[in-house]
Amino acid sequence: MDTIEKKLQELGLALPAPAAPIGSYVPYRMSGDTLYLSGVLSVRDGALTHAGPVGRDQTVESGYAAAQVCALNALASAKAALGSLGRVREILLVNGFVNSVAGFEQSPQVINGASDLLVKLYGEAGKHARAAVGVSGLPRNATVEIQVTLRFE
Amino acid sequence: MDTIEKKLQELGLALPAPAAPIGSYVPYRMSGDTLYLSGVLSVRDGALTHAGPVGRDQTVESGYAAAQVCALNALASAKAALGSLGRVREILLVNGFVNSVAGFEQSPQVINGASDLLVKLYGEAGKHARAAVGVSGLPRNATVEIQVTLRFE
Amino acid sequence: MDTIEKKLQELGLALPAPAAPIGSYVPYRMSGDTLYLSGVLSVRDGALTHAGPVGRDQTVESGYAAAQVCALNALASAKAALGSLGRVREILLVNGFVNSVAGFEQSPQVINGASDLLVKLYGEAGKHARAAVGVSGLPRNATVEIQVTLRFE
Repeated sequence: MDTIEKKLQELGLALPAPAAPIGSYVPYRMSGDTLYLSGVLSVRDGALTHAGPVGRDQTVESGYAAAQVCALNALASAKAALGSLGRVREILLVNGFVNSVAGFEQSPQVINGASDLLVKLYGEAGKHARAAVGVSGLPRNATVEIQVTLRFE
Repeated sequence: MDTIEKKLQELGLALPAPAAPIGSYVPYRMSGDTLYLSGVLSVRDGALTHAGPVGRDQTVESGYAAAQVCALNALASAKAALGSLGRVREILLVNGFVNSVAGFEQSPQVINGASDLLVKLYGEAGKHARAAVGVSGLPRNATVEIQVTLRFE
Repeated sequence: MDTIEKKLQELGLALPAPAAPIGSYVPYRMSGDTLYLSGVLSVRDGALTHAGPVGRDQTVESGYAAAQVCALNALASAKAALGSLGRVREILLVNGFVNSVAGFEQSPQVINGASDLLVKLYGEAGKHARAAVGVSGLPRNATVEIQVTLRFE
């Protein structure tokens, strides 16, 4: 178990099994030292942990938890790609999509659930550029989807 | 005609003319060995092949066909950039946006129309990381938009 | 003041102070010669310049102005990252998100407000790949958000 997985354990969290893609794509692609991860949902062991839009079926607080679930799935993909989470050098970009009612203004507060975990685990190297938006629908009616790009060695 | 265009022909498909950007941008940018393609729509010869949201004006099946049209347009842009589709080494990331009714859950099944074609043409090299989301509006009311990033040599 | 800031001044525009992230992320990340900027909103000096969806609270014309505000914020982030806007070599990719009513078709015309400014300032080097979509909600109910990736030296 590497340092990052130990930190996860100390936070009372554990890496899930990598999520299987819903469709004809793959969980990640590498180019040079850049790792592009596929979008991951608020899903664990194949079941949605958080479904439906924030502002109707979910609150900002439960959406925050959904985004943390997404971050764990992204880390599971990264481990599958790299063998060890210790090889992550910098999280570069997180695109966060929040399933939400029209006019929803708090996608940043929701996506913080992913960002906060990345920073807790990786410190400075976990701080990333980010864009968060509200969308009208996500795969399987998941509450949150994030797509992460990172640098590794 | 390169191998990829021959495969397209065998599938009964042909590259369209590259789509003209609607606005003050360009169809692609290269940096090192990375090619960033602009978002392309379900449009052929300047006319929409599929318009309106999935779940109201389109089905998942016709949305799948719309996504295939987008993939052909992305390939047309890639050929314009590279001279030959044989220079594509790996499709890295596909961002898929599905014009859809609120709560639409099947964006992956729609965007598979693009992904399946890329994999048919390029095999392992065509498999890509991907994020698919449902959005409330797309340019010209197109049914699908995809934005592709790839590695070339 | 570098050449780009002089051009801004000639256009009657000025760089804002860099926007503070709303959340646990950072305004930019660099990897090699690629600069990933965080999404920036139609905000100036902490206050929204344009709020609400196009098609209800804003027009295509005021949305265009909102997108220009976003471009200025992206440039402010780039200057914070690079020290000088003269180090920008090429704008690679602009992802434009327009807060808009369902079925909104003119996101390209809105995002042109950002693209036109980048091309005025940087000429050929300012031309970029782009994807524009309409979304149902943006942070703080801003009218426009753009996320820019560029190459620098």
